[in-house]
Amino acid sequence: MFQSFEVTARPEQGPPRLAALRNEIAHEGLDGFLIPRADAHQGEYVAPRDERLAWLTGFTGSAGFCAVLTNVAGVFIDGRYRTQVKAQVAAEYTPVPWPETSLSAWLKEQLPKGGKVGFDPWLHAADQIATAQKDLVNSGIELVRCGNLVDRVWPDQPSPPANPVKTHPIEFAGESADSKINRLAKALQSGGNTAAVITLPDSIMWLLNIRGSDIGYNPVAHGFAILHADGRVDLFMAPEKLTNLGDHLGGQIRIHEPDSFLDAVAELDGAVQVDLGTLPQAVADVLQGKMVNGGDPCALPKACKNPAEIAGSAEAHLRDAVAVVETLCWLDTQPPGTLTETQVVSRLENNRRKDNALQDISFDTIAGTGPNGAIMHYRVTEETDSRLDNGHILVLDSGGQYLDGTTDITRTIAIGDVGTEEKACFTRVLKGMINLSMLRWPVGLAGRDIESIAREPLWAAGQDFNHGVGHGVGAYLSVHEGPQRLSKLSHVPLQPGMILSNEPGYYREGAFGIRIENLVVVQEAPGLPGGDDERAMLTWRTLTYVPIDRRLIVVDMMTAQERGWLNAYHRDVAEKIRPRLGDQAQLWLDAATAPI
Amino acid sequence: MFQSFEVTARPEQGPPRLAALRNEIAHEGLDGFLIPRADAHQGEYVAPRDERLAWLTGFTGSAGFCAVLTNVAGVFIDGRYRTQVKAQVAAEYTPVPWPETSLSAWLKEQLPKGGKVGFDPWLHAADQIATAQKDLVNSGIELVRCGNLVDRVWPDQPSPPANPVKTHPIEFAGESADSKINRLAKALQSGGNTAAVITLPDSIMWLLNIRGSDIGYNPVAHGFAILHADGRVDLFMAPEKLTNLGDHLGGQIRIHEPDSFLDAVAELDGAVQVDLGTLPQAVADVLQGKMVNGGDPCALPKACKNPAEIAGSAEAHLRDAVAVVETLCWLDTQPPGTLTETQVVSRLENNRRKDNALQDISFDTIAGTGPNGAIMHYRVTEETDSRLDNGHILVLDSGGQYLDGTTDITRTIAIGDVGTEEKACFTRVLKGMINLSMLRWPVGLAGRDIESIAREPLWAAGQDFNHGVGHGVGAYLSVHEGPQRLSKLSHVPLQPGMILSNEPGYYREGAFGIRIENLVVVQEAPGLPGGDDERAMLTWRTLTYVPIDRRLIVVDMMTAQERGWLNAYHRDVAEKIRPRLGDQAQLWLDAATAPI
Repeated sequence: MFQSFEVTARPEQGPPRLAALRNEIAHEGLDGFLIPRADAHQGEYVAPRDERLAWLTGFTGSAGFCAVLTNVAGVFIDGRYRTQVKAQVAAEYTPVPWPETSLSAWLKEQLPKGGKVGFDPWLHAADQIATAQKDLVNSGIELVRCGNLVDRVWPDQPSPPANPVKTHPIEFAGESADSKINRLAKALQSGGNTAAVITLPDSIMWLLNIRGSDIGYNPVAHGFAILHADGRVDLFMAPEKLTNLGDHLGGQIRIHEPDSFLDAVAELDGAVQVDLGTLPQAVADVLQGKMVNGGDPCALPKACKNPAEIAGSAEAHLRDAVAVVETLCWLDTQPPGTLTETQVVSRLENNRRKDNALQDISFDTIAGTGPNGAIMHYRVTEETDSRLDNGHILVLDSGGQYLDGTTDITRTIAIGDVGTEEKACFTRVLKGMINLSMLRWPVGLAGRDIESIAREPLWAAGQDFNHGVGHGVGAYLSVHEGPQRLSKLSHVPLQPGMILSNEPGYYREGAFGIRIENLVVVQEAPGLPGGDDERAMLTWRTLTYVPIDRRLIVVDMMTAQERGWLNAYHRDVAEKIRPRLGDQAQLWLDAATAPI
Repeated sequence: MFQSFEVTARPEQGPPRLAALRNEIAHEGLDGFLIPRADAHQGEYVAPRDERLAWLTGFTGSAGFCAVLTNVAGVFIDGRYRTQVKAQVAAEYTPVPWPETSLSAWLKEQLPKGGKVGFDPWLHAADQIATAQKDLVNSGIELVRCGNLVDRVWPDQPSPPANPVKTHPIEFAGESADSKINRLAKALQSGGNTAAVITLPDSIMWLLNIRGSDIGYNPVAHGFAILHADGRVDLFMAPEKLTNLGDHLGGQIRIHEPDSFLDAVAELDGAVQVDLGTLPQAVADVLQGKMVNGGDPCALPKACKNPAEIAGSAEAHLRDAVAVVETLCWLDTQPPGTLTETQVVSRLENNRRKDNALQDISFDTIAGTGPNGAIMHYRVTEETDSRLDNGHILVLDSGGQYLDGTTDITRTIAIGDVGTEEKACFTRVLKGMINLSMLRWPVGLAGRDIESIAREPLWAAGQDFNHGVGHGVGAYLSVHEGPQRLSKLSHVPLQPGMILSNEPGYYREGAFGIRIENLVVVQEAPGLPGGDDERAMLTWRTLTYVPIDRRLIVVDMMTAQERGWLNAYHRDVAEKIRPRLGDQAQLWLDAATAPI
């Protein structure tokens, strides 16, 4: 279960696989085939069986897709992966900047009229296909449903996962499955819909208070569900996964074999609520005119954590902080030039595993030293493993899945004597992170409306970073959870109980990277004397309590208010974490949390 | 031409007019009628003939509408007008908060199934009608085209304006009409459209380098135009307005009587570019399937001012500043309790009129002292005219239309000894205005993405204001111009040459108001040492140079950087404006621009 440093895909494996796929494409009478990163559940993580994109191209990022045509194979990747993709794919693959270049625009450039591109309708969301088809109108290029051509040429493709599901206890869930089902069913009724189709595994886990282990790092089991407006739930999940649940899935819930899902969907009458942004095209094909694009009914209720979930998450963060602090303390005792990235990753995971409530780490720990820090989603392997040399800064981004909550924390650490440029950039990132932490804002705003606060100190220096300021986080669920986001893409108003990351960064390719990340939860802001009586406002409660490296701060660049926030934060860290530490780490913490 | 302080509409005039309108509604067999503020050109200002909303209800704001039903008459007003509407309409009218409550939601509450509500298809944009009709599907309530029922019951309704049009010289326009027509025609061609229908007067003025005076404060003439992809222009405007133009409207441009417009639109073939957000429903009815919603083709080119327009605007602002500074100097010599609001307005207009290039003020000057300052769009009348008493703060928002540019400036002025609460709020507004002024941001962001920077100091104190941070401004055109805006409603990326206002404020009903406004123009930001090479960024050039009242600043609340900006700004004001002032105003300016 420990993080592996194996190289899972090599550039040179790509070309022969590409050739095999092109044979299959020709055999089908097609001019191309689309290979998304996603599985039928549109999550960020997929089972080994669904790692088609990595298997084919070598690219292991968590988003993107490949369009294989006869003479060109475009790998579409977003801003986070521009550096990584260059190292991972062979010359036979062409990186395409996405979403700047859309699939349809690229196909129109590459294909003649009459071109036919196949896709597996289970792996693409209905919205994706609709957008591409709309953009291709009048182009003469057609998207064609077909079987999965990669599966046909992948000889040793792993089997689908079939791991046991467990109950998520009410003390952590804070609300019974019956209560959730009934309130969502009522909302369906009052919206005039007869049922909702749910295809996102974390929604199903949340709704039924269960957890699984079908994919790495995410406590979910693959399956589909139909929630009926009368309160019945049909769960489509291999029954052998469900043998440990006793009577947890009670009378309202009926269990079916997964392959009966489409037939059950076809039998639905009336208006059926779906999320076209994630619904597989294969399901949309069956529902057609009955679909109402009202979103996944679990998404928003799941995002707004209840008091038990918030308390659990806060407690998980305190225990998680102990593991991180012990690791940082140990790291500081090692002379520059002695450790490598994998040693830091393993030590940190070891420290986390001392907590019996740890179920798994919440993603592959990112430990990027020096130039590797500039690769935003760097996963260290045996081949890239680098020494933490004097003058490096180390980006250490990690998290744990605990029974009571999910953590995600990034700290950037000085290795020996660090240059002034790195320190100036670090201080700007920190100022942005602090200014967002201090923010109060009026009810009704979305992530888009406030994320500039965290970027402004970098902008003032002509700098910025190519990722959002933050993402939603689940309660012992996915470490990346929607719909809440601190991003230009997010128009969903922030609401009390939503957990998000606050993680501005800065990346200089070939030189260094910086990221500082705390998790925070939205809560109502207390009224202020002189404040507008009628104006309800929101603010954050911080969940993460780990020191921020004082050695990287240029104190003169901070305002008095920013210094005040940092010193108060470090006082809180000391108060909350110190009693949980060993002697050596206590001494380390005293120095790390001293006022600046 | 001087600003009038006449009360143009009284609450008690409303009810008999409402009764007459209801008779007409009944006579038509309808259950209601919609009275928008807009005319057929969807502008903010309308001719006296088109002041139907004010005539009927008494409400004189620049946005909103009334829905008259048999037993209720809703006046829909946005956040800026919540206070004003209470004073202006009789009890027979019900203010409705809009857009929080949509027309369709309100109609569904108020009307039974089968209800029919009439509207004049010339006065409503196609998008408006489409949205309302979509929301009313399944409600049984219908929107029905009809003649204008208000016009039938308005005995002394003024005639349509018919004022002469003049040429806008190339030295100010910076680009010939032929050049504009040709580049827009080429864009139509390459977009695959055969023509564009243009119904916004300021677009027509910009395209043809002409200016008019059909409505107050805006140098525009009413008319419609069709731009053909082959470079021909059909202008539908009363020929008697066009007798002073010589050969300015050359061979490409044909002039037609306005009432032949719909017939000409009906004859168009192929795809016709329109802006459904402003196109009258009456025109959409004729075009139907031929419409392509590509926007007004003049909007974006007009918004991005060329160097001649920017230079002209900068020069107009310097002369305008002299008028404002002379007024502020005079104001400070008058003891508290002696002046009234109208005296300030008249003095300021007098000072502006000393400049021969002034064509008009650019809107009714807002001079709100004490509690009147909290009415965001306050227009002083003989009845509301208030004395500037000791302890008041005065919001003074005004502008001029000059041949070389349009100005818009707000300053908030201390009258005698002002309380600490007002000063603290003023300082927060100023910090927001300064922080936005100092901002650099990456290319591609819209107003929505950055306006929080100007609000954050107020948010921190539990405060905010109910209007956008800024609006676009024309070049000797409309003082409110789209599509650029600093507002949550604006998704159009900011581009070099766009002129906007930067005007955060704060309003405490019944107590005081604050607003500080400079005009700024977007320009490319110079590269910075250490900045990201590949990241193009934008910043502002300031156009407005008038002191900000130092007596209202709590210096301790400002950061060193904010103080630095203000002192540098005041140095620039002194350098640019002092040589243009009389002796007394020079002395005043020296004190007003001393460092803090």
